Order: sequence, then structure tokens, then C-alpha cells
Amino acid sequence: MAEAALLACDWGTTNLRAWTLDAEGRIVEHREFDLGVSRLAPGEAARRFEAEVRPAFGAEGLPAILCGMVGSNLGWTVAPYADCPAGLNDLARRLVAVEAHGGWVRIVPGMRSEGLAGSPDVMRGEETQLMGWLAQHPDRRRGRQVVCHPGTHAKWMLVEDGRLVRFVTAMTGELFAVLGKHSVLKSDAPADDMDAFGQGLAAAGDGDALAARLFTARARVVGGGRSAESTPSYLSGLLIGAEVAAVPRLLGVPPQARVTLLGDARLCELYERALAARGVTHETFDGEAAAVAGLFALYKLGGAS
Amino acid sequence: MAEAALLACDWGTTNLRAWTLDAEGRIVEHREFDLGVSRLAPGEAARRFEAEVRPAFGAEGLPAILCGMVGSNLGWTVAPYADCPAGLNDLARRLVAVEAHGGWVRIVPGMRSEGLAGSPDVMRGEETQLMGWLAQHPDRRRGRQVVCHPGTHAKWMLVEDGRLVRFVTAMTGELFAVLGKHSVLKSDAPADDMDAFGQGLAAAGDGDALAARLFTARARVVGGGRSAESTPSYLSGLLIGAEVAAVPRLLGVPPQARVTLLGDARLCELYERALAARGVTHETFDGEAAAVAGLFALYKLGGAS
Repeated sequence: MAEAALLACDWGTTNLRAWTLDAEGRIVEHREFDLGVSRLAPGEAARRFEAEVRPAFGAEGLPAILCGMVGSNLGWTVAPYADCPAGLNDLARRLVAVEAHGGWVRIVPGMRSEGLAGSPDVMRGEETQLMGWLAQHPDRRRGRQVVCHPGTHAKWMLVEDGRLVRFVTAMTGELFAVLGKHSVLKSDAPADDMDAFGQGLAAAGDGDALAARLFTARARVVGGGRSAESTPSYLSGLLIGAEVAAVPRLLGVPPQARVTLLGDARLCELYERALAARGVTHETFDGEAAAVAGLFALYKLGGAS
Repeated sequence: MAEAALLACDWGTTNLRAWTLDAEGRIVEHREFDLGVSRLAPGEAARRFEAEVRPAFGAEGLPAILCGMVGSNLGWTVAPYADCPAGLNDLARRLVAVEAHGGWVRIVPGMRSEGLAGSPDVMRGEETQLMGWLAQHPDRRRGRQVVCHPGTHAKWMLVEDGRLVRFVTAMTGELFAVLGKHSVLKSDAPADDMDAFGQGLAAAGDGDALAARLFTARARVVGGGRSAESTPSYLSGLLIGAEVAAVPRLLGVPPQARVTLLGDARLCELYERALAARGVTHETFDGEAAAVAGLFALYKLGGAS
């Protein structure tokens, strides 16, 4: 096993993913911890990091870099948002140092964008994936890229010459979860019926009037004789289809602009189907690998000397 | 007290509203029962109607007419949907007789419309309010009317020459409830901040990209410093604003077509604000009075001889 030189963590709301990396940024070891910031008591992030995360790797004394909600008021310390436009070097200059017995520890700031309706939009963690993807693909640091990170709160990011200039968050994943659990559309069935998913995509229209289009998920069962078991798949198609149809416009890019998907493979595949159904060119990259690359690149630029 | 000639009921999912009416359709007595069809065991609607509703009025032996979810598979008996287009006379011809010890009992059929995305849309109860409003206002039985019934599942109805020709359901009220209870937007605060409601209206845009616009309700607090207590009001404005902006298009009417609101006064007032903000002419009528008028008119046309 190569020697570990860095402990890199994506510390989110629900869990903590951690890697030790060697001096070239290659993964030495990977572990996940049931330590999302939503489960932490106030002020205990530092203690649990030193008591649980470091020892699991035998990583005492290694420099560590952390991104995600660990930089929010629920986490270790507040790492103030970096405003758009910003690139890798801007973020590296804004790493926040925290007091830690175990050695050099830095937290990556989240990012803030001019948002819709006069409210700034915010992210914590996705900026590191994006910067990692740009570090992995130097050819993408020129010109314009539209990058979508699917998830509970999907992020649509507009990149120009390697800097994130604007982003928009869509609550698609959360809508899917709360409607599937708590509304008239609730169901315990799995969302694995690809025919129904395709019907949902078709029902998304141009992504307008979502509250009305959502009712078709009910009407097709009550009035149309479709099986209630197909509702989760239909709902998934409808919500992702509506997002893909309408959100790029909010970024100010043409609806047919190529989209780069960056995230979980299974979820990206659903977005691929939605984009293909609209004739939009797309490509997919692994979000976790991008997060590791981003943490390593930020460490190298802003790291311990 | 005038002599009761009819027992009229709007028997919905969550409660049962009942009136005795005199021979001219005037209300003699009004009662509400905690007897929504969602609380009924299978097959017990008839028994509880005879054992609880009739005796409360001393209405044994009176003819009775019932609309709403009582005509669904959760209710007393399934009253098959009447297809659009249909008017008062069409519905009166399609009343469904049920076996009842207490006398003549009829159930009003729900209605079905060609819907979005190839799935028929459906309603049970709102058709009776609509027909009642048309019965109350003979001048509205000519030409085109756009009628909106706000609620958990808001109904937008297109009326031509006194017949309902098409309708669309929007899950606006249900979205408000589930997001306010179960999502990152949850809050126990009351939705009574009219400034925040107005900000939500403005954030609704043209009713597109709702999943993204919804996140502004979070971003304005986390990134914009607004109070979390104003979230329910903002969310209400955003959802109602998006509905009012986008749903009329789905009915095929111009966005500036006059809208008639028919429903609960407090809820209609929020829709009035949303319509006014878009410069749409509107008027409001009481939904409960319309339901009573509709039940009476249907009884007179299809009633016991």
C-alpha cells in the first residue's frame, strides 16, 4: 500500500466520505462514516473527527482537507462562501484553517451565486467536485461548460474559462422524496419501471405548470387505469424531465447546450435519459472521483508548506 | 324554522358538510361531521349516514343528494364519472341511486376531462359547486368562463355556454402542505406575512422551473438573511403565483383571461392577490353557497317525483 500523504473528506449533511491519498493524489484507502453534520451535537465535529475519522485510517498527524456542510453553521466552523465567479485558485486562497490537535486541517468554502428572485443561491461540496473535474480535464478549462450535479438539491453550474460564474439549485430529489412519502402520490414501490419513467418524461412538457403536471401522476392511476406501483417511476421521470427542460434557461444558456453530468452513476443515468429524450448532447463523469481530485488539487494549491 | 324538504351533503375526503334545505332551496340547518370518506371502513358509508347524519337533523324520510368523494370507491358506491363536456342537465340525468332505508338518496357523479399527457383528469365535488354557481348566475351560462377552485387539489375549469368543457388539476395546496411539513422548507410559523407572500409571488416568474424556484425559499434564508419564520408565507406566494401564471395556458386560454374564483374566502383572497399581481381581472364567489345551490338544482332536475 502506498504511503498516505493527505486525509481528504467530503463531509456532508448525512454522511462523511473520507480517503487517504498518496503524494500523487491516488487513493490509498476509502471509508464512509455515519457522521453527517445533521447528526452532530453543536461543537463536536472536531472531537469526533480526531477520535473517529483519523484513527480509522491510522492518519494521525496527516494534513487534512474537508469540503461540504462541515463548513456550515452545523459543522466544524463556518467557512464563508466564495462568491461567483471563482475558480480553483480562488477557492485555494480561501481555505479556512481550523484548530486541530492532529495537524494541519483546512475547510473548503462553499460558493454563492447571484440567484433567482434576488436571493443568492448557495452550495457546499459541489464546488469541490466541479473544480476537481476541471482539474482532471484541462481542456474543459477553456470556453463554456454547463455542468449538472443531480441530487436532493441538484446544482446546475455555468462554467466560463475554468471559473464557476453562476449556478441554480433545483429541489428535484427532495420533491421526489417528500411527494413519494407524504402526498397522495406516496408509494413503497421501487422506481424501476422504465416505461413509466419515459411516460413521466413525456408528461413534463416544457417544465412549466409543475403542480398541474404532477397531478397527472395521480390521474393516470385514478382515471387512466395505470398501476399505482408505476407511480414512483413516473414521478421520477416527470420531475427530472421538468428540471432538464426548464433549468438551463434560468442559467441563460440555450436549451440545446451540451450538458455535463457529474455525480452518482445511477442517478446520472436517469438524467441521461431525460436529456436524450430532448435531443440534448450529454456526457457523464463520476462525482466521487471528481471530489477526490478537487480536494487534492486544493490541498496542493493551498496546502501545508 | 322553515320546513326541511331535502338533505344535501358535500361528502369529501376529510369531512362531510350537510344542509337541510326548504322547498325553495333555502338553508334550514347546517352541520359538519368528522366523517370524511378516508375515515370510513369499507361499506359503512350507508350505515353511518343513516345512523349519524340523518338523525342529527331529524331528517328521517327526507330525500337526500350527495356529492364528492362519497361517489368514489372509498365512499358509498361508485358513481361513474361524467365526461366533459357536460352541464347541469347532463349531471342530473346521471345521478346514481343507492339503496337506503331512509328514503330517496342520489349521488352526483364526478367528472372526467381529457387531461395532460394522455391521462384523463378527474374531480368529485367541484362539478357541483360549478353547476351551482352557473345556476345562481344565469348570465354566466353564455360564452366562456374560466373558473378556479383553489384547494389541496386546485381545479381550473373552462366553461363554454354553461357546460364544463375541460379542466386541469394543480396540486398546489398539497405541495404547500408536504413541503411545509416534511422538506428543508418546513416551518411551524403561520403563513400570515403578506410581504413575504408578495416576494414569493414575484419569485414565481412565469411558473416554469418550479423545483429551482422553490429553492429560493431556502436560499433567501441561508444565503440572504431573511427570517425562517417568513418561509411559509413566501412558499405560499411562490406556489400560488406559479399556478396562476402557468395553468391557464394549459386550458388553452389567454394568460389575461378573466378568472372567477369559487371557494373558501380566505384562500380565494390569496389567489386574488396573485391574479392582481399579474394584472388579471378576477371576481370571487363563495364555494359553499355554490355547492348548496348545485345540490338543490340537481335535486330539482333529477329529483324524486
